[in-house]
Amino acid sequence: MIEVGIVGGSGYGAVELIRLLEHHPQVRIKHIFSHSKIDEPINKTFPHLNHLTHHYEDLNIEDVTCDVIFFATPSNVSKHIAPKLIEKNIKVIDLSGDFRLTNRDVYKQFYGETAATQQHLDQAFYSIAEWGTTNQKDLQLIANPGCFPTATLLALHPLVDNKVIQNDSIIIDAKTGVSGAGRSLAQHVHYAEMNENFSAYAIGKHKHKPEIEQYISRLANEEIKVVFTPHLVPMTRGILSTIYVKLNKQMTAEHLHDVYQQYYDNKTFVRIRDLGEYPKTKEVYGSNNCDIGIYVDEESQTAIIVSVIDNLVKGASGQAIQNLNLMYGLNEATGLQQLPVYP
Amino acid sequence: MIEVGIVGGSGYGAVELIRLLEHHPQVRIKHIFSHSKIDEPINKTFPHLNHLTHHYEDLNIEDVTCDVIFFATPSNVSKHIAPKLIEKNIKVIDLSGDFRLTNRDVYKQFYGETAATQQHLDQAFYSIAEWGTTNQKDLQLIANPGCFPTATLLALHPLVDNKVIQNDSIIIDAKTGVSGAGRSLAQHVHYAEMNENFSAYAIGKHKHKPEIEQYISRLANEEIKVVFTPHLVPMTRGILSTIYVKLNKQMTAEHLHDVYQQYYDNKTFVRIRDLGEYPKTKEVYGSNNCDIGIYVDEESQTAIIVSVIDNLVKGASGQAIQNLNLMYGLNEATGLQQLPVYP
Amino acid sequence: MIEVGIVGGSGYGAVELIRLLEHHPQVRIKHIFSHSKIDEPINKTFPHLNHLTHHYEDLNIEDVTCDVIFFATPSNVSKHIAPKLIEKNIKVIDLSGDFRLTNRDVYKQFYGETAATQQHLDQAFYSIAEWGTTNQKDLQLIANPGCFPTATLLALHPLVDNKVIQNDSIIIDAKTGVSGAGRSLAQHVHYAEMNENFSAYAIGKHKHKPEIEQYISRLANEEIKVVFTPHLVPMTRGILSTIYVKLNKQMTAEHLHDVYQQYYDNKTFVRIRDLGEYPKTKEVYGSNNCDIGIYVDEESQTAIIVSVIDNLVKGASGQAIQNLNLMYGLNEATGLQQLPVYP
Amino acid sequence: MIEVGIVGGSGYGAVELIRLLEHHPQVRIKHIFSHSKIDEPINKTFPHLNHLTHHYEDLNIEDVTCDVIFFATPSNVSKHIAPKLIEKNIKVIDLSGDFRLTNRDVYKQFYGETAATQQHLDQAFYSIAEWGTTNQKDLQLIANPGCFPTATLLALHPLVDNKVIQNDSIIIDAKTGVSGAGRSLAQHVHYAEMNENFSAYAIGKHKHKPEIEQYISRLANEEIKVVFTPHLVPMTRGILSTIYVKLNKQMTAEHLHDVYQQYYDNKTFVRIRDLGEYPKTKEVYGSNNCDIGIYVDEESQTAIIVSVIDNLVKGASGQAIQNLNLMYGLNEATGLQQLPVYP
Repeated sequence: MIEVGIVGGSGYGAVELIRLLEHHPQVRIKHIFSHSKIDEPINKTFPHLNHLTHHYEDLNIEDVTCDVIFFATPSNVSKHIAPKLIEKNIKVIDLSGDFRLTNRDVYKQFYGETAATQQHLDQAFYSIAEWGTTNQKDLQLIANPGCFPTATLLALHPLVDNKVIQNDSIIIDAKTGVSGAGRSLAQHVHYAEMNENFSAYAIGKHKHKPEIEQYISRLANEEIKVVFTPHLVPMTRGILSTIYVKLNKQMTAEHLHDVYQQYYDNKTFVRIRDLGEYPKTKEVYGSNNCDIGIYVDEESQTAIIVSVIDNLVKGASGQAIQNLNLMYGLNEATGLQQLPVYP
Repeated sequence: MIEVGIVGGSGYGAVELIRLLEHHPQVRIKHIFSHSKIDEPINKTFPHLNHLTHHYEDLNIEDVTCDVIFFATPSNVSKHIAPKLIEKNIKVIDLSGDFRLTNRDVYKQFYGETAATQQHLDQAFYSIAEWGTTNQKDLQLIANPGCFPTATLLALHPLVDNKVIQNDSIIIDAKTGVSGAGRSLAQHVHYAEMNENFSAYAIGKHKHKPEIEQYISRLANEEIKVVFTPHLVPMTRGILSTIYVKLNKQMTAEHLHDVYQQYYDNKTFVRIRDLGEYPKTKEVYGSNNCDIGIYVDEESQTAIIVSVIDNLVKGASGQAIQNLNLMYGLNEATGLQQLPVYP
Repeated sequence: MIEVGIVGGSGYGAVELIRLLEHHPQVRIKHIFSHSKIDEPINKTFPHLNHLTHHYEDLNIEDVTCDVIFFATPSNVSKHIAPKLIEKNIKVIDLSGDFRLTNRDVYKQFYGETAATQQHLDQAFYSIAEWGTTNQKDLQLIANPGCFPTATLLALHPLVDNKVIQNDSIIIDAKTGVSGAGRSLAQHVHYAEMNENFSAYAIGKHKHKPEIEQYISRLANEEIKVVFTPHLVPMTRGILSTIYVKLNKQMTAEHLHDVYQQYYDNKTFVRIRDLGEYPKTKEVYGSNNCDIGIYVDEESQTAIIVSVIDNLVKGASGQAIQNLNLMYGLNEATGLQQLPVYP
Repeated sequence: MIEVGIVGGSGYGAVELIRLLEHHPQVRIKHIFSHSKIDEPINKTFPHLNHLTHHYEDLNIEDVTCDVIFFATPSNVSKHIAPKLIEKNIKVIDLSGDFRLTNRDVYKQFYGETAATQQHLDQAFYSIAEWGTTNQKDLQLIANPGCFPTATLLALHPLVDNKVIQNDSIIIDAKTGVSGAGRSLAQHVHYAEMNENFSAYAIGKHKHKPEIEQYISRLANEEIKVVFTPHLVPMTRGILSTIYVKLNKQMTAEHLHDVYQQYYDNKTFVRIRDLGEYPKTKEVYGSNNCDIGIYVDEESQTAIIVSVIDNLVKGASGQAIQNLNLMYGLNEATGLQQLPVYP
């Protein structure tokens, strides 16, 4: 059994890790940490987990003995702790943004804080699990991608990798359910104000913009900037990313569809929809799937790619477990085969 | 023009008073007070009011010069301030619970704080506007009823007044939209946890229980206790109160329906539905209406009354304006004739 | 492997059976029937099941060869077909109401159609799975309980069985999410009219009223009538039933809580909340759990029981699988251990 | 008094016209037509209008005697009837798409039916009310704009008119609440499937694409094509249109903001937000306002414009009344000054 601990145990990332890991045949949850709720039973905070006997623990690095620690924390937490765990030979999978950006200035600009050391950033592997490295087993520190980047990069990857688009033309109009904002209270996610309300936010300033840029720039081997507009949808779960790109040559929808089909042929969790059909967020609710729909406006040589995930599963905890599976040489789908909850 | 001020200007009660009063032909909003946002423009907090040029003011009793002050505050505010305003001959309409209960011990028990003085409590008139006193003009202090009590008492009033029920048999199963919990942040009304969630709360402990009991006890001239269970519905506005009572004699649905029809024949805002039809909360959304449906289970001599209001209008700000109209001898519907927003 | 077929394959009951059975280690779905979609691939109707290669089949009784058939159909379907399957030695689990009521006149009154024959009704076993018979294996025809009755009877059972209440005092104020109305289109569940709307419906006429009465009458060995008011909540899944009963003697909340604790001590899926806490529907979302909260109003000797389930799981497909497990002597929780999806 | 009739009286456009016209000081609703509900009282279909004594009428052209007829019908209705009304000197305001497109082939392509005659199309005036003609009074037939085009064109107008953008660069990512799909039943707007669900639809095929193109092409005096992707949001009311355009020269956000401020300085219903703030749909809920937010990505010379309206008010019935006001030389805001319902 792989013994794991979860830091940030009172948040949504943690509670979703628990939901999924409880069905993972090779994993045992040993510790759940929360520095604001030390010694409290978890099922007091989350009554739906009332079969769980765990109590929240204080994270005391000397005493931690498990194999893997998940950080399901806000930014500015893991960068202070993860390096010490790695020294103790404990693997870290970080769901926060602390180890995603390799450029410390960019981190400073978008996160408003000092980044982790360059050495630790270099040590981290940013892992969209569909393209995990073959030697994933030797990894000590995985930066688990953000929710918007996951939905977006799974859609952009075949385009950039196959060099079929103008790399300076990428526009990402992304929409997320409210759980993406986390469990901390804020006026704009107060029920009475968020319900029956749709809005754009953080245009040009969202932390996931440089994350997307860094990844596709590396993939394309040139610096790429994107236009990225996040929106907040009055629903709990789900991300839909609508991506507009200029094709760099005439291409039919059928042709582009083939590109995607082949690209994801052997990937468990990415499903390409038939032409003329577009995925809906509810169709991946509660699952680790990413469903993708494709449209080509031949007139303007614009491709429109629609990509959906459950932000808490493929966009966070599910992908983190998928990465754990890769680290341990397990089938990537182990413990992750729950079907979408529909309706 | 009647010049009014609003205390608690950053809450939902205030913003709804503003929405309605802006269409009141005889009222001018002179002051909007908020001690946490002094000098800030109101439309910074509420961008939908961007035509409004008011700034939040500090409430300085000496400087207040308007005719009426509305308190749209949490409990434990108006009881300290309203008496001083009354001394200055400013009328007060209190949307909070501070002057609703005449028994100071009961207030202490349910509100957890010391009540206003008995003298001031005795001075207050608890005004379900449909039964305002004829000499309402002389009133200085109106205790505007709570949202659950309004929906419930409009349904119970004909039954108790006509002495057709067993007064010890009243069960009130009440459901409210989330705006009833106010604008202050709390975990249970955080969008991601409130959405797709329905729950009961505060059973036996809700402040509106003694308020209902006090009113109908006075009406019946005997002490009456009720069973009262509030529930929270994943929607913003609306209250539906389902009331179960034992009839004290055999009575058909048709007969009981006649009782209600006659009772509310000349009331603008109370509408009795045809037998077999029950009102839905959306059918009063944004309006000052109270719609009532009636069922009689002849087998068990149980009447079931279903009553709906918009908690922020008839359950708070709308009724407060209706009370203002009565105070000034205006038609009770002045400024309140907006139709429900449907769908 | 137990080979099963599902009739009514384009509805919500079926799609939920599929979600759960795909994780059941002992079951293989052999046929999915839908007479309106014969030969169509299932994943055209339900794109979220795009891994599924099944096509809808026409139900041709001669050709059916599996072990168990689930009916996830409206009423008036299974009563015509199930008897023929049973003759072929195929077990039937009926999620519809056709075999729930043993009195054919009552069926006629509430369903508006002629009932199944008395012989077939007598053959059916109405199975709240927590009280399945020990010789469940010999059963050929299970009437799977309705959603409201499941939530309600799990709450009432300890009270009636322990004879602690006045049996003529039962009032059930029940609330359901909209998926309970099924997948067929209707104006009142059109999104724009159902959203932000809460209502009561079918008071005194709902099919689940006689179902509840029949069950507890048998349990109490006397004829019991209940007052039953269903309500529709603007959310997809979840039932909360608030039940009011008069205790037949003075009893503290602690005492009543003990009764429930003991009663459900060895039941996997029924969880009794601590005193002062009430379950929310989201806390059982997607799971087969039934969570129960208890309140006693000592003043009026009224107990208030709050019970929640997911109407599509414990209220339909989950309980059907639980019943299948009992039929085959499996652990009742086999394939049903998915945790609630929260938030 | 202006006497008006409404065709399509059982739909959402009609019910919103009624809500607003009931407060219009110069208008009396004389007829409400619905060929499926002839002679039924309106408040049977819409109980929230129970004060209304109108019955649905059959539209018999000879007998119609009012001044203005509103068509709140699906497409393919008004084109057959409106010409006959005009002959009788009755003005027509058509909320459907029948007279919006002047090119009959384009109508055929997107609506799938034969268009009105060219003569009648030429007679119609497509009126975004902010740019109504000065001789609006002489108009006989107004084509009231679609909901998406209204939100989008109010945002694009200053850009195209001021020639600051590359006209071939326009991408419109539009999101609408579900009431935009009308009152007719359909699976994708069935509550249980629409709730907690976000999706794109009709990419490249939506009727509002050519409507937008026609308008801005005329404004720019060159043929312009746009990329237009509509999305469906799980909420009842509201449209948010996110528009991406390439500026044709370097321009700061401040400069572009000034352009908008000046452009809409004297327009009652268009409100430009401060830089860094973006409007939310709820901030215009129930009102005739269009609120606009502006962002400039100087790096890529891309402007992002966020525009919100209530699809049933400014996107349909409100603008229709605004157009009526212009036709009769009234202040454009007459009867339309209701503030947004918030929260």
